[in-house]
Amino acid sequence: MKQVLLIICTVLLCVPVMAQVDRVEPPFWWSGMKNPQVQVMLYGKDIAQYSPELSGVEILDIHRTENSNYLFITLNTDGVKAGKFEILLKDGGKVKQTIPYEFKERRPNSADRASYDASDLVYLLMPDRFANGNPKIDSHPDVVEKVNRKLDGGRHGGDIQGIIDHLDYIEELGATAIWSTPMCEDNDEKYSYHTYAQSDVYKIDPRFGTNEDYKRLASELHKRDMKLIFDYVTNHWGITHWMMKDLPTYDWIHQFPGYGQTNYRMTTQMDPNVSQYDYRYCMDGWFVKTMPDLNQKNPLVLNYLTQNAIWWIEYADLDGFRVDTYSFNDKEGIAIWTKAITDEYPNFNIAGEVWMHDQAQMAYWQKDSQIGAIQGYNSNLPTVMDFTLHDAIMEVFKVESPTWNTGIIQLYENFVNDFLYPNINNILVFAENHDTPRINELYPNFEDYQLAMTLIATVRGIPQIYYGSEIGMKGDKDKGDGDIRRDFPGGWPGDSNTAFTAKGRDEVQSKYFNFSKKLFNWRKNASVIHKGKTIQYVPEQEVYVYFRITEEKTVMVILNNNKTSKELSLDRFSENLKSFQKGKDVLTDTTIKLGNKLSIGPKKSMILELEN
Amino acid sequence: MKQVLLIICTVLLCVPVMAQVDRVEPPFWWSGMKNPQVQVMLYGKDIAQYSPELSGVEILDIHRTENSNYLFITLNTDGVKAGKFEILLKDGGKVKQTIPYEFKERRPNSADRASYDASDLVYLLMPDRFANGNPKIDSHPDVVEKVNRKLDGGRHGGDIQGIIDHLDYIEELGATAIWSTPMCEDNDEKYSYHTYAQSDVYKIDPRFGTNEDYKRLASELHKRDMKLIFDYVTNHWGITHWMMKDLPTYDWIHQFPGYGQTNYRMTTQMDPNVSQYDYRYCMDGWFVKTMPDLNQKNPLVLNYLTQNAIWWIEYADLDGFRVDTYSFNDKEGIAIWTKAITDEYPNFNIAGEVWMHDQAQMAYWQKDSQIGAIQGYNSNLPTVMDFTLHDAIMEVFKVESPTWNTGIIQLYENFVNDFLYPNINNILVFAENHDTPRINELYPNFEDYQLAMTLIATVRGIPQIYYGSEIGMKGDKDKGDGDIRRDFPGGWPGDSNTAFTAKGRDEVQSKYFNFSKKLFNWRKNASVIHKGKTIQYVPEQEVYVYFRITEEKTVMVILNNNKTSKELSLDRFSENLKSFQKGKDVLTDTTIKLGNKLSIGPKKSMILELEN
Repeated sequence: MKQVLLIICTVLLCVPVMAQVDRVEPPFWWSGMKNPQVQVMLYGKDIAQYSPELSGVEILDIHRTENSNYLFITLNTDGVKAGKFEILLKDGGKVKQTIPYEFKERRPNSADRASYDASDLVYLLMPDRFANGNPKIDSHPDVVEKVNRKLDGGRHGGDIQGIIDHLDYIEELGATAIWSTPMCEDNDEKYSYHTYAQSDVYKIDPRFGTNEDYKRLASELHKRDMKLIFDYVTNHWGITHWMMKDLPTYDWIHQFPGYGQTNYRMTTQMDPNVSQYDYRYCMDGWFVKTMPDLNQKNPLVLNYLTQNAIWWIEYADLDGFRVDTYSFNDKEGIAIWTKAITDEYPNFNIAGEVWMHDQAQMAYWQKDSQIGAIQGYNSNLPTVMDFTLHDAIMEVFKVESPTWNTGIIQLYENFVNDFLYPNINNILVFAENHDTPRINELYPNFEDYQLAMTLIATVRGIPQIYYGSEIGMKGDKDKGDGDIRRDFPGGWPGDSNTAFTAKGRDEVQSKYFNFSKKLFNWRKNASVIHKGKTIQYVPEQEVYVYFRITEEKTVMVILNNNKTSKELSLDRFSENLKSFQKGKDVLTDTTIKLGNKLSIGPKKSMILELEN
Repeated sequence: MKQVLLIICTVLLCVPVMAQVDRVEPPFWWSGMKNPQVQVMLYGKDIAQYSPELSGVEILDIHRTENSNYLFITLNTDGVKAGKFEILLKDGGKVKQTIPYEFKERRPNSADRASYDASDLVYLLMPDRFANGNPKIDSHPDVVEKVNRKLDGGRHGGDIQGIIDHLDYIEELGATAIWSTPMCEDNDEKYSYHTYAQSDVYKIDPRFGTNEDYKRLASELHKRDMKLIFDYVTNHWGITHWMMKDLPTYDWIHQFPGYGQTNYRMTTQMDPNVSQYDYRYCMDGWFVKTMPDLNQKNPLVLNYLTQNAIWWIEYADLDGFRVDTYSFNDKEGIAIWTKAITDEYPNFNIAGEVWMHDQAQMAYWQKDSQIGAIQGYNSNLPTVMDFTLHDAIMEVFKVESPTWNTGIIQLYENFVNDFLYPNINNILVFAENHDTPRINELYPNFEDYQLAMTLIATVRGIPQIYYGSEIGMKGDKDKGDGDIRRDFPGGWPGDSNTAFTAKGRDEVQSKYFNFSKKLFNWRKNASVIHKGKTIQYVPEQEVYVYFRITEEKTVMVILNNNKTSKELSLDRFSENLKSFQKGKDVLTDTTIKLGNKLSIGPKKSMILELEN
């Protein structure tokens, strides 16, 4: 061994040293960005000793860290036209390496791109579990974990091609946007399928496809006037991320040193009585041992994350972000990151995962929140998720004996606090996601599914559904996350049941799908739902009634949470029923005459378009 | 019958008519008030036909309503010296009646009077149930309901003299202020003992004593450097209120017409999606049939209530208010009422009952709330009640299997939202009151009582305790309100058990009392609790630790919610333990050396004064 080392050293000392840059990130950039600066990171053995030069592009700053393998070069793209350049690494006068670099042309109106909003219906899927369009890439030599469908937590082989192959299905259902869980490379040994422990954030995981495939997914969606939402992870990377073996700076990640477990108590972010100890362990602690926590207080880290996010928007022509564990990030850092992106793309929507159980605490995180302002904080985050509504949905439809504050009143109570949110239409509403119990497992009865979907499709905000539930898919969170992330039937060659087609769906699947399709396709064009005002009534006899209202249209929604039929006296609603004579039930296409009373079946929902 | 009527009419027509003023309210006023205006209401048969005159006092306004039996005369007291005056009621030139009126001298520094705050401990009692100091007035000819101790909901005979007789006891316990439930006359047939359905708000109920007795209670308290808090009811009066038989205006009360039941959904006050129907039924609806809901939108009503409140402060020399059902009042009206009082007495504390279960909704009602400001609302209310802490206290000490969000974490979570309140020290903290389950019924174990009391005596805010619990008194809310309002043992002549004295208390009572006395008397001088900053730690192993800190002193509080002993690693608390070497446990008078570990017994609490 000693001999070998000696030989290597001798070789290194004798041979004329050339720079060896292994990585350039971002790999290219664009001209004409609002923020003219881009910080190019070069990585290679001892490259910090060289001086970078470019012709035609001003270098604003050269930043070296304690690790001599990194160089951070800040370029000024102001007035620089799209084209190819060369970064020269020089040692004295000698060029040690020439690195090609490019500023690309942006697509027209890139900055002003539209995004997703309350007129959309977001379909959340996990690419490994949706459909396997290309079995050839189920395993890949560059990444450790190989396909194994027998493991709940293993890789099952779903991929980008699988999604593209079934866009007809998603479109037919009435969804207008796809939020896929992350797709960048995750080289963990186990559980890599969820892809939240990424090893390379500039590269799509080869088991999903290529960067080009991902771009094609966006393009195929756009052809259908549909949208693609990228699941961005700012809080952490995977332990196998290439940088973890050779950190640019010791404080690139939070060090305890090394791993320290978060306490998950996000409330420490706003608690005025917080101990520094708890605050640190929440913010800086790692989610799990395999996910080093990124230090967004370090400007190099923050800038890296910002540029990477913008790179994907521009490269793949994205329509929006969902940001993982938003409120676990450094509070100031994530606000700067969010602002940088929305400064670049003013209409770009970003939904942050703020999984809290108190509306003031959630509203805290929305852009221009007056709750956040109490502590001088503005996250700049356009959209938060309605986790308290989710809490309520998980309970209300199974309450056997409603009380003063349990039962369908819990839905009503949630909307009371709408006043806490600065932008009530920018709230993601959902009955489930990939981290929660499945709605059909919680509520095995189809009627409860109908109630839950009617609700999220008709209240304010951006509805989000979760793949598979529309065909009645179940899954038990208590059995592990794998079970709520089952493979979509028909997504794999040889699947005996193919729920993607009317022909392939069995009776139960058809029942779920047909209802869902009807509801969601109606919502697609129901601008009264997209932007109407809400008027809600205190539930009586476990029946919840609310109206959505625009100048042009009024819709009355009725949810009967009883296992028996109920008769409503309509005079109570006269301020909204006005002189309307009839209501067309969009779920049954029947028209009801509005008299003194209205009867609604057990566990039924009605969406009445009011008419004269 | 016809004949009789004829005779009466004849008599009335023949006899020369004299004005007959039956009531003058306020019965007197003071000179030198900040607000120089006072609106004197005269009530008497057909008096509106007369013209009032005063010499030496300017009449700013004479207001007549649709009811000719009322006259509202607004006087300008600016520059008017204290003294007696005469209000002349004239018809043309003739004086029809002369009404004596007086402006009294205010006591020195009346406007700048101090009030109750976080340095106090408030003792809540119900006068009918505390002690019977004067059995002669247990029943009274002027009021309907007579004494009957056999009825849970009957009058038991407690009175003002009973309270005065036992001030030694209350003082010995360590309380510094008394909040008594209302004492103005309540002439309901049944349940009049609670006195929230008042029939005359200028007069103490004769079964409690006289106005002079009430004044004497305040005076006796002041001699002990203790305070008196008046329970004011702005929202409603009793159906037997004298005015209900002859309303000054139809809209003096909320009319449906007559009775309409409130839906009790206070959230309608802030719900941006509220229906006008629900809003009206919450705000205008009556609490119960026997409590007509006052219309504070009517300036005459609002002014009547404001003057009545000020009259009691000035007359009885009060130290503060508690306001019943604060958030059921007309929102704007109650804000004006509150401001009028605090304008007159800038230091005067008013605690409003805002019984909600969401901290943002409660914080909404505190003066200068930034939550209220979202809707442009400022209640001007100095103090709200910590009902969410109460919710938590009712649950935490009986949680058998703590989870992520149940168990002692519920206490911690409550204080996280302290940032929502504009004034965190102006929050009433309590484990129970006269409307809630009794703490000793919820928690029959003495250890749980100790935990609950340690908590409320050491957290931020104004602690409030409820009579009887300090000697272990129980009472089951499920059996009706009467059971949580039992008679204090020893308060009635002939009581076999006298818990007011050490000698009279049995073993259990002594155990409760001695602990309570020690804790509360320590708190009395613990300025670190009155004004210290709080630092709390995420509970681990069901043990909750927090510190109260001033420049001069640090106190560490530890609550062990386990039925087993626990050992704490102290290094986690080093930012607050600093270089302190010892902790003196104020509950046991023992001093503990602070090493690496600290052991705490099952269901024990510790309050450690840290020392070097």
